[in-house]
Amino acid sequence: MKPVVGLTMGDPSGVGPEVLLKALSDPCLIRKGRFVLIGDRFTLERARSRFAPDLEFVAWSDDSPPTGRPAGTFVELLVPEGQEEVEECFGEVRPAGGAAAARAIYAAADLAIAGRLDAIATAPIHKRAVELAGVKEIGHTEMLARRTGISSYSLMLVHGHMRVAHVTCHQSLRDAITGVTEEKVLATIRLTHELLRTLGIRSPRIGVAGLNPHAGEQGLMGDEDLKIIRPAVDRARRDGQEVTGPYPPDVIFPLLLSRELDAIVVQYHDQGHIPFKLLTFRHRRGDHGMRKVRGVNLMLGLPFVRTSVDHGVAFEIAGQGVADAGSMRDAILLACRLASSQIHPKV
Amino acid sequence: MKPVVGLTMGDPSGVGPEVLLKALSDPCLIRKGRFVLIGDRFTLERARSRFAPDLEFVAWSDDSPPTGRPAGTFVELLVPEGQEEVEECFGEVRPAGGAAAARAIYAAADLAIAGRLDAIATAPIHKRAVELAGVKEIGHTEMLARRTGISSYSLMLVHGHMRVAHVTCHQSLRDAITGVTEEKVLATIRLTHELLRTLGIRSPRIGVAGLNPHAGEQGLMGDEDLKIIRPAVDRARRDGQEVTGPYPPDVIFPLLLSRELDAIVVQYHDQGHIPFKLLTFRHRRGDHGMRKVRGVNLMLGLPFVRTSVDHGVAFEIAGQGVADAGSMRDAILLACRLASSQIHPKV
Repeated sequence: MKPVVGLTMGDPSGVGPEVLLKALSDPCLIRKGRFVLIGDRFTLERARSRFAPDLEFVAWSDDSPPTGRPAGTFVELLVPEGQEEVEECFGEVRPAGGAAAARAIYAAADLAIAGRLDAIATAPIHKRAVELAGVKEIGHTEMLARRTGISSYSLMLVHGHMRVAHVTCHQSLRDAITGVTEEKVLATIRLTHELLRTLGIRSPRIGVAGLNPHAGEQGLMGDEDLKIIRPAVDRARRDGQEVTGPYPPDVIFPLLLSRELDAIVVQYHDQGHIPFKLLTFRHRRGDHGMRKVRGVNLMLGLPFVRTSVDHGVAFEIAGQGVADAGSMRDAILLACRLASSQIHPKV
Repeated sequence: MKPVVGLTMGDPSGVGPEVLLKALSDPCLIRKGRFVLIGDRFTLERARSRFAPDLEFVAWSDDSPPTGRPAGTFVELLVPEGQEEVEECFGEVRPAGGAAAARAIYAAADLAIAGRLDAIATAPIHKRAVELAGVKEIGHTEMLARRTGISSYSLMLVHGHMRVAHVTCHQSLRDAITGVTEEKVLATIRLTHELLRTLGIRSPRIGVAGLNPHAGEQGLMGDEDLKIIRPAVDRARRDGQEVTGPYPPDVIFPLLLSRELDAIVVQYHDQGHIPFKLLTFRHRRGDHGMRKVRGVNLMLGLPFVRTSVDHGVAFEIAGQGVADAGSMRDAILLACRLASSQIHPKV
């Protein structure tokens, strides 16, 4: 059985609808799941006619899946209740755009919680637009955590065999340091271990980055590595997991690249994002925006699979048709793969 | 006139003497300057006989440079006053090793301050060994800052056209955040600008990284980017310098790689070291230690040129003869280049 994957459109003023429809126009991809686009009908129709004209929209109903149509020729559409037409307005922060983006996310989350979707892959939203629409949470992760009522979760960046889980994420560096607790480090190690097992790795090898330069060098530069991170690593090892660290933050990534580790746990946003984006983004001199974009965001700890692109709304190139859909495609593929593993678990 | 470059041996238990003599055994390199090895005679002689047997040691005297010998066949030797024989003892932290390493550094600094050396390139020391020898400063940078009495300085990592200057460096992440002040950011921008001018770049383009994720995203995640870093950038621009930022820390490195920037200024150790080492170190699965090592440390703000290898003592491979001398060679070459630019400035 193919997994049912909800695709939220993201901010209608950004590249979200474009990269979604570009990704779905790939006939190989669209055969891998049953896809439900969630968002404003008019925004999505404009993107469809431009980037995936051969694809047909069919109204979604989980009671009666579409029949009689060849696989890969259509995508299902769900317009959240109360969603009115959003006018085309590329590159602008607008409350109506933020509200439509948020409505799609909540609709997708509620369907996934009810077991009517196996996975969600989300296109990018604009934090300020969502805030203007009255949403208190700072991003997807926080919105989904609140909606599902979970307290233990982690953002993981994924690209091929590079898997980078974050103990803290979208907060100031000062708050992140305070947010690194033994319990949070241990919870992130455990979530990472579970994910790797879902991916079929029997004895996952996880490396944990220190917080301070040189992992504190025996307390010479900060004591968090000795007092918080090492005890968390020790507890995970006592659980029987193959966990090592804390490593100096500037040497752990090469260990991941050489496949001595299956995943790493980093302590704060930029400790993971700086090396990850260095390897997955390509910038050409003189270009506006990044031209080659790879990498997927995966939220660990939710009761369903949720992936996301690893880039923002890219307002500066929205509407130009030049956005790279690689990250969105990879996010949809990973959602399909993880959801399939859960539907058909390997014993 | 060739620059006179002092080479300090580093910790005798580490790979320092090995990488120094390996680098000097390259006939191309040794013709580029007049080199003075500084340290324990016995340690250096052991490394010479093993890694540069064709090279002759000549006692250094700046009154009478060696004459009658072909360039590139010898290296001068200076044993600091009071230095006794250090026994061979690879891979061990020993006060005698730390003391010998520190003595070489102070001797080199004093000669450079007196104008008798044009530049210094340093091999790696072991922080704990130096501490056991009674030195209070935590590393080369702090020892040299204290010896020369400077208060404004910065560590820059250099590899080819990648140049990364640090506002703060060897301190805990918590202290680093407090250490990022408007004055320090501005001073680092100015030191970087001067260095780029010395390298012959007429209108250097400098990018400054933010402190927080997404450079704080308009204050949503910390206010240091708005209140400290932006004002420093603005002041540098008012001085007429081409400075941009603060950039989100996870997108600035690709701009450096694509040569849209001549150098970047980062706020803390790992913000610079994580991406830099990812690009300059190569780790092979199963190897002990890193096998390919490039990149140079350059200390800005000193009254003389000072470069250093970008790796540590590597005790785990010391004495085995397998250390890569690439970083040491690059450090010596950069010292020669910068010292030559100062002896023969381009107007």
